[in-house]
Amino acid sequence: MDQRQTDEKFMRLALNEARKAFEEQEVPIGAVVVADGAVIGRGHNLVETLSDPTAHAEMQALTAAAATLGGKYLQKCTLYVTVEPCIMCAGAIGWAQIGRVVWGADDPKRGFRRYSEAVFHPKTTVVSGVLAEECEALMTSFFASLRN
Amino acid sequence: MDQRQTDEKFMRLALNEARKAFEEQEVPIGAVVVADGAVIGRGHNLVETLSDPTAHAEMQALTAAAATLGGKYLQKCTLYVTVEPCIMCAGAIGWAQIGRVVWGADDPKRGFRRYSEAVFHPKTTVVSGVLAEECEALMTSFFASLRN
Repeated sequence: MDQRQTDEKFMRLALNEARKAFEEQEVPIGAVVVADGAVIGRGHNLVETLSDPTAHAEMQALTAAAATLGGKYLQKCTLYVTVEPCIMCAGAIGWAQIGRVVWGADDPKRGFRRYSEAVFHPKTTVVSGVLAEECEALMTSFFASLRN
Repeated sequence: MDQRQTDEKFMRLALNEARKAFEEQEVPIGAVVVADGAVIGRGHNLVETLSDPTAHAEMQALTAAAATLGGKYLQKCTLYVTVEPCIMCAGAIGWAQIGRVVWGADDPKRGFRRYSEAVFHPKTTVVSGVLAEECEALMTSFFASLRN
């Protein structure tokens, strides 16, 4: 399996997480953290369910992954998330010094790049646009459902 | 009690939280969230204890406050924190649309203003420098203790 196929495989798992959020009437964003080919943390947006403004998919996936590894750094891990992280989650990714970040759909309005592109650790590599259409379609469908 | 006295009173509570972190060999930062003159959330840095890069004082205080109020927004609240928030915590403060943020010591290296000053909600007011010397002294003392 080449890198692109691997990235799509794990993004599908992040999409499964996002669908859980959708079913719970949450903004449908999902994330998984992968190390050595295995998922070691996952999460979906739970802001409304938990009444917690910090309960984004990435925060939960990062917290779970760090708990699995027993340390605060995730240098050898990849975070897959269906939508470009916000500045809060980007800050968390920076603290974790995660090795690689892969996201699906861009988020020009709330994405971290609106504020600063320098939040991640300098060694973190970034890939965007993986299954972007599916990730974006889930968001579009969710916000359309709110208007009905 | 005028505003300055009120701010110093609650910053002393945040300093108490920071001292708990110090005793647990954590970077000594503490925070409280106040609404209508009452503390509705508190937290101290627990990154090492929990092996969680997101377990900053502010994150825990905001999560606790939102749980107390039963909603994700904290517009009528003030967050007191002993040190200028990092970009992750600033992002969380932005999502919570908190009414007022008061911090003690500036953090030129890790503080959010290094990245962007526009992360908070436009209506959030900011006060810095409250009991700054005490907040700073606790940090200096902690990092000095690490070198011994």
